[in-house]
Amino acid sequence: MTMKLTILGCHSATPRENKHTTSQLLEVKGNMFLIDCGEGTQIQLRKSKVKFSRIQHIFISHLHGDHFYGLIGLISTFRLLGRTAPLTIYGPEGIKEIITLQLKLAKSWTDYPLHFRELSSSESEFLYEDEVVSVHTLPLDHRVYTNGFLFTTKSSKRKINTEAIKGLDLKPYHFKLLQEGSEILLEDGKIFENSQLTLAPDPPIKYAFCSDTAFNESLVPLIKGVDLLYHEATFLEQHQKLADQTKHSTAKEAATIAKKANVKQLLLGHYSNRYSDKNEFIEEASEVFKSVVLAEDLKSFSI
Amino acid sequence: MTMKLTILGCHSATPRENKHTTSQLLEVKGNMFLIDCGEGTQIQLRKSKVKFSRIQHIFISHLHGDHFYGLIGLISTFRLLGRTAPLTIYGPEGIKEIITLQLKLAKSWTDYPLHFRELSSSESEFLYEDEVVSVHTLPLDHRVYTNGFLFTTKSSKRKINTEAIKGLDLKPYHFKLLQEGSEILLEDGKIFENSQLTLAPDPPIKYAFCSDTAFNESLVPLIKGVDLLYHEATFLEQHQKLADQTKHSTAKEAATIAKKANVKQLLLGHYSNRYSDKNEFIEEASEVFKSVVLAEDLKSFSI
Repeated sequence: MTMKLTILGCHSATPRENKHTTSQLLEVKGNMFLIDCGEGTQIQLRKSKVKFSRIQHIFISHLHGDHFYGLIGLISTFRLLGRTAPLTIYGPEGIKEIITLQLKLAKSWTDYPLHFRELSSSESEFLYEDEVVSVHTLPLDHRVYTNGFLFTTKSSKRKINTEAIKGLDLKPYHFKLLQEGSEILLEDGKIFENSQLTLAPDPPIKYAFCSDTAFNESLVPLIKGVDLLYHEATFLEQHQKLADQTKHSTAKEAATIAKKANVKQLLLGHYSNRYSDKNEFIEEASEVFKSVVLAEDLKSFSI
Repeated sequence: MTMKLTILGCHSATPRENKHTTSQLLEVKGNMFLIDCGEGTQIQLRKSKVKFSRIQHIFISHLHGDHFYGLIGLISTFRLLGRTAPLTIYGPEGIKEIITLQLKLAKSWTDYPLHFRELSSSESEFLYEDEVVSVHTLPLDHRVYTNGFLFTTKSSKRKINTEAIKGLDLKPYHFKLLQEGSEILLEDGKIFENSQLTLAPDPPIKYAFCSDTAFNESLVPLIKGVDLLYHEATFLEQHQKLADQTKHSTAKEAATIAKKANVKQLLLGHYSNRYSDKNEFIEEASEVFKSVVLAEDLKSFSI
């Protein structure tokens, strides 16, 4: 199993012609999760050619405009497209009032069930799970209440050891029991321990989205060893003061978190518009942590 | 004096890659007025290369998303750009609550004065005037409370008749008096009636924005003889039923209003996405009213 992450927008502050504000689409075995929804996200979704009507869960990190001003438009577009499937929005307290006030004044209630899970805890909490993935919050440190999100695939079933089962007369239900971790009893009376005939399942895949946040070491234990960490890097170290004042991170700080958490790969984004050469972010981060990639609008990553 | 109208978006319902929802910029002698503000308007403003920080008045017709979902983003961008000049928003009751709720939850109050003039009258009312232009509402008939807007330039001063003043010893203050319509007394004692030495001023220029609305004859006396009428034409006559159900107009209905009001030119827009060939709108309207043009995103018109 892999996750596919598509960056819809990865720039901070204000949307421009070719610089879109934060939004990401995470696909896990056909499930689509939208993370943040800056202005114009619905146009980016159309450009990315995904069937975005399949999004059923939207996670909003915080209520700064560059992370959610496109949400009301997307909700309205789903209505105009005749959506019937339920949609759940996870975001800070207040998000329900913002959306429902606008729907009420437009006399345009959605024809599909629209649910809200409003967040206010400063501890990591469980948000969602299905058969393949679970989602938890990652409390961040920003000017307003903000969460990142951790997506973890469920441990898959144990894998049949094709070498070990050679010559055995296994029925279909035996395979099911083995994948579930049980021992089995064959028709000839022989008993096999599960470990004799199976291999350990693939480890879970983990994706952590962390934006916006100041340098925040309390994040480290929550994202330990994740396969991919998206960490904001609004500034370069030369603007450390600005980063501190605005509770954003530098590329170096993002890399420091990645190193401390021993993640497999670091994905940088949320660049300030003041920098024209994004390679400076790679260079600065690489001095601390070697596996760094840059987010780009409409670029996809396999996890 | 002329007005310059730039269409930022002229499509209905949902924004797409090359189809933006309603927004228009009207420039009158250096003053910039924004009319409606669909999602992504700030990007369209950047594309149009105008100095959009000079916008001081924004007129919102109604609270359907395709006419105002870009407003909160533009207000926020003005803040991020360091704006200090006041901004006034004219729009239906409720608009202030929508905007201020979002600013409050983002802890991002504007550093510039932000004023609201909330509208609820079903009669045409005066909104704004300065030295060159006045603005009045045009009550429309839509599914929610909606106004169009009428922009009228002030009558300019009377024009000096250069033929008639030949040989007269006029001082600068005589010119001022003549332009203001007064008679003058020369130093040699001669008195001239104003009409002897001046010509009538240019007539006022009028632009009427009417979107969204069902066919609405009560509009006719309010927009009589305007130089340019923008009238929505969401549908063609073949979808008359849909137009009636949704309280929109067909191209033919827009042309009928233009004809009854004896306007100089009709500008169509707010097209439904169902039509790929926009020339059908021209053809249908031209059968009723001959001077018809089509709105296109980022196209400008002189009035």
